[in-house]
Amino acid sequence: MQHVLDKAKAAKAASVVLGCMGSAKKNAALLAMAQALRGSAAYILAENEKDLAAGREKGTSKAMLDRLALSDKRIESMAEGLESVAQLDDPVGEVIHTALRPNGLSIGAKRVPLGVVGIIYEARPNVTSDAAGLCVKTGNAVVLRGGSDAIHSNIAVVNVLRGAAASAGIPEDAIQLIDDTSREAATYMMGLNGIIDVLIPRGGAGLIQSVVKNATVPVIETGTGNCHVYIDESADIEMGLNIIHNAKMSRPSVCNAAETLLVHEAVAQAFLPAMQKRLEGVELRGCEKTRAVIGVKAASEDDYYTEYNDYILAVKVVGSLDEAIAHINRYGTKHSEAIVTESYRNAEAFLERVDAAAVYVNASTRFTDGNEFGFGAEIGISTQKLHARGPMGLKELTTIKYIIRGSGQVR
Amino acid sequence: MQHVLDKAKAAKAASVVLGCMGSAKKNAALLAMAQALRGSAAYILAENEKDLAAGREKGTSKAMLDRLALSDKRIESMAEGLESVAQLDDPVGEVIHTALRPNGLSIGAKRVPLGVVGIIYEARPNVTSDAAGLCVKTGNAVVLRGGSDAIHSNIAVVNVLRGAAASAGIPEDAIQLIDDTSREAATYMMGLNGIIDVLIPRGGAGLIQSVVKNATVPVIETGTGNCHVYIDESADIEMGLNIIHNAKMSRPSVCNAAETLLVHEAVAQAFLPAMQKRLEGVELRGCEKTRAVIGVKAASEDDYYTEYNDYILAVKVVGSLDEAIAHINRYGTKHSEAIVTESYRNAEAFLERVDAAAVYVNASTRFTDGNEFGFGAEIGISTQKLHARGPMGLKELTTIKYIIRGSGQVR
Repeated sequence: MQHVLDKAKAAKAASVVLGCMGSAKKNAALLAMAQALRGSAAYILAENEKDLAAGREKGTSKAMLDRLALSDKRIESMAEGLESVAQLDDPVGEVIHTALRPNGLSIGAKRVPLGVVGIIYEARPNVTSDAAGLCVKTGNAVVLRGGSDAIHSNIAVVNVLRGAAASAGIPEDAIQLIDDTSREAATYMMGLNGIIDVLIPRGGAGLIQSVVKNATVPVIETGTGNCHVYIDESADIEMGLNIIHNAKMSRPSVCNAAETLLVHEAVAQAFLPAMQKRLEGVELRGCEKTRAVIGVKAASEDDYYTEYNDYILAVKVVGSLDEAIAHINRYGTKHSEAIVTESYRNAEAFLERVDAAAVYVNASTRFTDGNEFGFGAEIGISTQKLHARGPMGLKELTTIKYIIRGSGQVR
Repeated sequence: MQHVLDKAKAAKAASVVLGCMGSAKKNAALLAMAQALRGSAAYILAENEKDLAAGREKGTSKAMLDRLALSDKRIESMAEGLESVAQLDDPVGEVIHTALRPNGLSIGAKRVPLGVVGIIYEARPNVTSDAAGLCVKTGNAVVLRGGSDAIHSNIAVVNVLRGAAASAGIPEDAIQLIDDTSREAATYMMGLNGIIDVLIPRGGAGLIQSVVKNATVPVIETGTGNCHVYIDESADIEMGLNIIHNAKMSRPSVCNAAETLLVHEAVAQAFLPAMQKRLEGVELRGCEKTRAVIGVKAASEDDYYTEYNDYILAVKVVGSLDEAIAHINRYGTKHSEAIVTESYRNAEAFLERVDAAAVYVNASTRFTDGNEFGFGAEIGISTQKLHARGPMGLKELTTIKYIIRGSGQVR
């Protein structure tokens, strides 16, 4: 695994240089990277076509091929992404805490880059440029390890980004792609403590669990979203219908989509038949009480644990708010959870007692997103409690350093 | 390992109750816990004597027995520790970010407890009450797993604390001690993802590395301190002598003590002989250039990597500030690093380019400490970059939860 080690070490060395660079230089590099993507669209599309051809040959699903496919429009959107990151405030250098101690020591906590960020991800080539852009902005070197399905596209995108970075005077070694897509290379990368400072896996539950299990480098767990919408007994029925329709149907494949609907028994008769109508095309799987009201398939225990990422919804009738909260805390993945209610007391109890990164009253779970939260960009959505929780923007790609200025103090 | 699982699950259940409790109740419990320690001193000392007897029997070192030994004074100090934690501001519930989005969604990021904190530690029984106190204050349940050397003391302290907590109306199950001191029990605990939210190891390098390697639960790495003092060519020699004397000799066994002294060659003649005199009783191990000035043992490459925690100091003469920074970034553990200089430019370069939790100009590394930084309490000193860096106080025992209030918004 010398080739992986070499790239990680080159990233580490580059991170020291990049970490001390000012915003003007980093922003200029981002703009150069955006222009380079546009200028190299033909090359990138040709390489992307190799991935698509390989995918078609091995019978990759249409949905998967669609994720993998680049186009002029998607490349433009990658370029615009880099440009918009250039516009954001640079968190590096911000002093977030100061103290003058009685002994005269001046203590400041300053935001500094993490150092080297490792990203392990699957088949979306746009993650390659998004992640590289966010890391350059925050002064971090990045070691990218994408999936084999997108390898030609990723190599092309990284070649273009490295060239543009170098031309703008930032070290090209700050952007590294591990082009060995073997499992061994990924596992090796997960053990590079002291070189890689943090690993962020982006992809399906299998990928994420593998990183959590195998990594000794600190990990930020992202993205698994088994989200719920709970219709309280006091809910505005029409609002509840709008919210579950949006949370389930606007984009079922994403992590902030709803997977289970909980309905208070007092409104089950009023809500469930209307819901069934509004969610036409969605396969409903209900508990016994649900099936006493509407004709749907039976839900199993497994259904409540499942993130379908599809037009499927589990439905459960509950006897109380407490039962709803207990269900969510048991089966959920601590991502995004919503209550629809007109009751102040129930709203507050839900916000307080549900353990999740984002808890909503009378809004769709689909809003859990860096852009929707106003962060301007997002490297992922953390479902763990350490370091970052919920959508992670630029600040979450930094750490702090205590700076202490003295005049000879001893203890 | 059912007994470990049972205790962790009981802690999880208790954390839900404790996490919603207000400061008044938690503070009352801390005061009750302090009083209970005082009232049960005879019982705790008798149990501590069992540990001491076992230690003496197996030939435990005097230094180790001293760490293990409790006394009325030490129990009083544990009690006062709990009382002082009660006085601190409770970080739970603080809203650290708010936004009103254009669509009317109100978003707030609120500090909430982590949930269940696991502490794996060695032979100091005072860690048991310190950690329990900090966790109760921040609404976290704690699962303690101390070393076998202190097992009777730990059982006694936890019995007393649990009883006092229950009498003050907070769930006694929020304080758990794993009384199985086998390696298997610790390893099992490190894999309890979904039950234990974070693991904080406290102890020697071996313990910490074992936790980093084996844990799938997120870890905060603490305490390994291979710290340096660098005497720049422009240093005030007397100040430099005071600082290295303090950094090495005031308490050699702790993580913020200095282990290597770096001296610019331009001041080696002026500094080294005076230093040798000031640090009488310290074994010096020097590079060739050092040994050309003062008669000391030769330092090996290994010495530069070693955290002695003892009256031993490696000494190296460097040709430039750059060489000093490169040495620190290569051999250091990113804990605390100091420069002694009168040069503005060199001070700023050192602060910027040394990669460590705490970087000092003209002050001793010994100040890296929660109390010295003004945090009032400390659960450990993080040497990683994720979540927390440097001394960890109460805030570092919390995470955030995004609270979103809407009026029917969909995306």
